Amino acid sequence: MSETVRFGVSLSMDLLDRFDQLLSRIGYDNRSEAIRDLIREKIVEEEWESPKEETFGVVFVVYDHHALSLDSRLTDVQHEFLDNIVADLHVHIDEQNCLEVVVVRGPGKRVRAIGERLISMRGIKYGKLNLGTSGQHVH
Amino acid sequence: MSETVRFGVSLSMDLLDRFDQLLSRIGYDNRSEAIRDLIREKIVEEEWESPKEETFGVVFVVYDHHALSLDSRLTDVQHEFLDNIVADLHVHIDEQNCLEVVVVRGPGKRVRAIGERLISMRGIKYGKLNLGTSGQHVH
Amino acid sequence: MSETVRFGVSLSMDLLDRFDQLLSRIGYDNRSEAIRDLIREKIVEEEWESPKEETFGVVFVVYDHHALSLDSRLTDVQHEFLDNIVADLHVHIDEQNCLEVVVVRGPGKRVRAIGERLISMRGIKYGKLNLGTSGQHVH
Amino acid sequence: MSETVRFGVSLSMDLLDRFDQLLSRIGYDNRSEAIRDLIREKIVEEEWESPKEETFGVVFVVYDHHALSLDSRLTDVQHEFLDNIVADLHVHIDEQNCLEVVVVRGPGKRVRAIGERLISMRGIKYGKLNLGTSGQHVH
Repeated sequence: MSETVRFGVSLSMDLLDRFDQLLSRIGYDNRSEAIRDLIREKIVEEEWESPKEETFGVVFVVYDHHALSLDSRLTDVQHEFLDNIVADLHVHIDEQNCLEVVVVRGPGKRVRAIGERLISMRGIKYGKLNLGTSGQHVH
Repeated sequence: MSETVRFGVSLSMDLLDRFDQLLSRIGYDNRSEAIRDLIREKIVEEEWESPKEETFGVVFVVYDHHALSLDSRLTDVQHEFLDNIVADLHVHIDEQNCLEVVVVRGPGKRVRAIGERLISMRGIKYGKLNLGTSGQHVH
Repeated sequence: MSETVRFGVSLSMDLLDRFDQLLSRIGYDNRSEAIRDLIREKIVEEEWESPKEETFGVVFVVYDHHALSLDSRLTDVQHEFLDNIVADLHVHIDEQNCLEVVVVRGPGKRVRAIGERLISMRGIKYGKLNLGTSGQHVH
Repeated sequence: MSETVRFGVSLSMDLLDRFDQLLSRIGYDNRSEAIRDLIREKIVEEEWESPKEETFGVVFVVYDHHALSLDSRLTDVQHEFLDNIVADLHVHIDEQNCLEVVVVRGPGKRVRAIGERLISMRGIKYGKLNLGTSGQHVH
């Protein structure tokens, strides 16, 4: 990890007051940490556009496991992308519904394509893909 | 305008380097200004949830002005919400297509409802609603 | 405008009921129109990624017009991008605050760059860039 | 599961062509399924605003597990919200970095608050909260 540095931010007292109120509502106990989070978010979004940079995606899908043998079809698709799919968490929502979270690794474009493929499978009720980060450039 | 104050942020040199690169790509010439923008964005998002706080919305719609006498129907809807609709900008895209930007003022919930109403009108090809701010709490 | 065609969608009665309730809350008076809007939204998002496709962006900024001669600096930046900037709407919020909406035309990447440049100007309290569409491919 | 019904959508041939191209790029093999997904997405977003409706959230955080004993602090927070936290998936990114996915169950507001709490913890490099659905109203 690299050296810690410090820089100053000037702003109006009013703006700072409003920000501090917001942080305490969210649960931050440290203003520097909140600013670092805002900075990291911008940097991570930038990473996603880079064609080579490795990122991590979190895809989740909600589906009825009785329907259309989706469990095994989901497993098939995951095996097709074995080099990119890292792990999988399965949650039993009720007798019918399952939530499955799939962690995908690779360049942004590839992660996006795999996520879209999973979400567009027949029988999936709802799905969402998020790009994250490998954490290497955000200390 | 309230007094200007200053606070310090500590972070790793690596994170700061990445952030500065990003700012220069975007066109910021001042790091404090970039941090203030990140803070203001969070505060404005918070405002939208508040039932009384007045905000400004920017709604735009793209449509074919030949179709369905949309011009006059759009004007009708705007007159229905006269207390909330502030101004309107009309852009001629080509022989067929128009872009119309409508500025709406009021509590977040009301602004959202008016925007949804405009966007859902028959014949609108594309529309989007954005919440903004009156600027009163973000100095 | 091209020929009108018709296709069928099958879905569960429950899902359709929920959808119809949502449409009536929003203000749609026509289910086909709601489906077309969902389709158009996907197509417009796709356009933004295309390097050549012309699109329209709506940028808005909120600022204190007393501060930093922002009015004239905003005008300067707009003249710098004369080929891409189409029109401008200025709204007086209160004694201090202004809302300015700028309509930008060009390929997605260029529109984004101009929007980021405007929003990142010193003294802007809040700004947002939206990509829209020229409407040519969404009938 | 409720009865299957069918309704018709009319639109221009051009719009349909563009939509079909998009679906084949994404990987849909069925147009009805794509339309159902668009409908479900709207309904799920509506659910999040309802104060009582139970939903599922997927929170993920990326962090350096050496730092600040975050592993055990994350576990502590999760035990604090035992009634709402369902399961947890931990992925080892590299020697330093971990990705942790937490599945949270409850009304939208509560799920959001727990997610914000986790993401704002000191030492988290990046985090994101998504609301999903229990799947009960989207067949």
